[in-house]
Amino acid sequence: MSAIKSIRSIAPLLDRILVQRIKPEAKTATGIFLPDSAVKELNEAKVLAVGPGAYDREGKRVAPSVQPGDKVLIPQFGGSPLKVGEEEYSLFRDHELLAKINE
Amino acid sequence: MSAIKSIRSIAPLLDRILVQRIKPEAKTATGIFLPDSAVKELNEAKVLAVGPGAYDREGKRVAPSVQPGDKVLIPQFGGSPLKVGEEEYSLFRDHELLAKINE
Amino acid sequence: MSAIKSIRSIAPLLDRILVQRIKPEAKTATGIFLPDSAVKELNEAKVLAVGPGAYDREGKRVAPSVQPGDKVLIPQFGGSPLKVGEEEYSLFRDHELLAKINE
Amino acid sequence: MSAIKSIRSIAPLLDRILVQRIKPEAKTATGIFLPDSAVKELNEAKVLAVGPGAYDREGKRVAPSVQPGDKVLIPQFGGSPLKVGEEEYSLFRDHELLAKINE
Amino acid sequence: MSAIKSIRSIAPLLDRILVQRIKPEAKTATGIFLPDSAVKELNEAKVLAVGPGAYDREGKRVAPSVQPGDKVLIPQFGGSPLKVGEEEYSLFRDHELLAKINE
Amino acid sequence: MSAIKSIRSIAPLLDRILVQRIKPEAKTATGIFLPDSAVKELNEAKVLAVGPGAYDREGKRVAPSVQPGDKVLIPQFGGSPLKVGEEEYSLFRDHELLAKINE
Amino acid sequence: MSAIKSIRSIAPLLDRILVQRIKPEAKTATGIFLPDSAVKELNEAKVLAVGPGAYDREGKRVAPSVQPGDKVLIPQFGGSPLKVGEEEYSLFRDHELLAKINE
Repeated sequence: MSAIKSIRSIAPLLDRILVQRIKPEAKTATGIFLPDSAVKELNEAKVLAVGPGAYDREGKRVAPSVQPGDKVLIPQFGGSPLKVGEEEYSLFRDHELLAKINE
Repeated sequence: MSAIKSIRSIAPLLDRILVQRIKPEAKTATGIFLPDSAVKELNEAKVLAVGPGAYDREGKRVAPSVQPGDKVLIPQFGGSPLKVGEEEYSLFRDHELLAKINE
Repeated sequence: MSAIKSIRSIAPLLDRILVQRIKPEAKTATGIFLPDSAVKELNEAKVLAVGPGAYDREGKRVAPSVQPGDKVLIPQFGGSPLKVGEEEYSLFRDHELLAKINE
Repeated sequence: MSAIKSIRSIAPLLDRILVQRIKPEAKTATGIFLPDSAVKELNEAKVLAVGPGAYDREGKRVAPSVQPGDKVLIPQFGGSPLKVGEEEYSLFRDHELLAKINE
Repeated sequence: MSAIKSIRSIAPLLDRILVQRIKPEAKTATGIFLPDSAVKELNEAKVLAVGPGAYDREGKRVAPSVQPGDKVLIPQFGGSPLKVGEEEYSLFRDHELLAKINE
Repeated sequence: MSAIKSIRSIAPLLDRILVQRIKPEAKTATGIFLPDSAVKELNEAKVLAVGPGAYDREGKRVAPSVQPGDKVLIPQFGGSPLKVGEEEYSLFRDHELLAKINE
Repeated sequence: MSAIKSIRSIAPLLDRILVQRIKPEAKTATGIFLPDSAVKELNEAKVLAVGPGAYDREGKRVAPSVQPGDKVLIPQFGGSPLKVGEEEYSLFRDHELLAKINE
């Protein structure tokens, strides 16, 4: 049985960042639901948790570039997938994230 | 639904540079529109936003080589694509940019 | 004959971490046993033993990120398999572990 | 429309060097023009512009090995191609250049 | 003719570790000898000799993690094979060894 | 037209070394010329020119290991070929040369 | 014509080590000569000459691990072959040698 009670129990290690992709609208503006194949994946994600940072060459932690709640652009490939219940998440290393999305 | 309201909301991380390719003329000098297949892609781009710089080995930020508004030569391959609405953009790392184009 | 009397006799070297995957339930909520092929492997593991840490560039040991008893997310690929009796274990390097799973 | 008015508007970044291959004679000593297929490409090029230098580990710029006007041997492979009007140029990194050609 | 009089004449260089795999039982508990194909190779080995250690960046030797007589887990792949008489040995680099096996 | 008037005009950059392979005898001891296919290439070369040395991490030039006039063993593969008139030369990096051949 | 008068004229550069494989007996204990195919190659070699050592990061030479006359274990693959007359030699880098063979 999975040891993960909730996604909140995941504490990324070193420079890893836990994110969840932002889901594209599955229905049109007029409210018609679209089949899965018509919904393109977005490379946008929400940061759920950040690691304490990797060590630099002097043995100090490098603070992560993002904070929980930030919206970020993620690369098209890479990352480690994680499934909790029916939801999918990914873990990236801090330097793999491309950009923050400001509101 | 995409979290990106406008391309201006993209804030590149570390040494990443957000650029948009300069579009080749899609019509001839006499005003005749050319089909897409006759328009060659340019490796010229305009810098829209720059990251704060990657860390060097002493933990200091390395200032990016270019500024928003600069025109630059980009490499033929590489970069991370980004689509906002109908427009396409790319994110490069600062050291991947080849040259500045002065006016 | 194997020199390993018990998994407790394994003392990981440098930055290696000995873990055992958490086994998925092999029966349904109502107590019906599932065939092996219906049981998906989890990427969750329990830390059994940690090495003393690899050396950094100044020759000091880097303390491992996890402790025996911790539950961790392991990557989908990699790690060195180890079989003791009927049980399977893996050795990972500290930086390969993705996250701690808090209770 | 290309933003490049003239090759002189290209300012290489970091340790990049803008060169143009020296064209082989397309006619024989007696003035007979040779077909393209009979003209072998030379690995000789003229330096048109040099970048300010890459940063070394102490954050200081490393001065490029060549100056505009220098003639250089370029490697058989590599370099980033650039076309301005009908002319072809290449961008190399300073350490990829093989030798200076003295007169 | 081999210059190796005995395995004891092998003195590993730098960070190399000379080991011999521990042989699996070739007979059953009741004393019946098993054919070779029924005997699975173990990844357990005994350390026979250790090198003086590789140099770190300050030019100091890094002491090996194991001592002659130690029992160790070796990786499934890698190592340099060595045959002396009918016996087979392997040389690993210190950091390739996975764990010590305590008694 | 080639800018190279003479091989003497080639000044290697950084740690590059200009060499010319020593030609094997194309005739037998009794003066009979051998067909090309019977003449094996030698990995021996004469140093014609040396670069000023690459920079080490402190920004100082590393003096090349060989001097013009030295005879050297070159590796079987690698090097950048250079043709001037009918003669063939190669450029190697200093650390690629295997040995000096003393007389 | 080869510039190498004798193998003694080879002076390895940097961290390279000149060795000659020890030849296996081509005849049996009772003096019967064996065909070539029955003679297995040994990974044992005699050190003939050593380079002055590669430079470490502080610009100091690292003394080679072996001396001329030493017998060594060489890896199964790698090394640069060298033929002088009918004899075959190899050049290895110091850190590629596996072990010294003491008498």
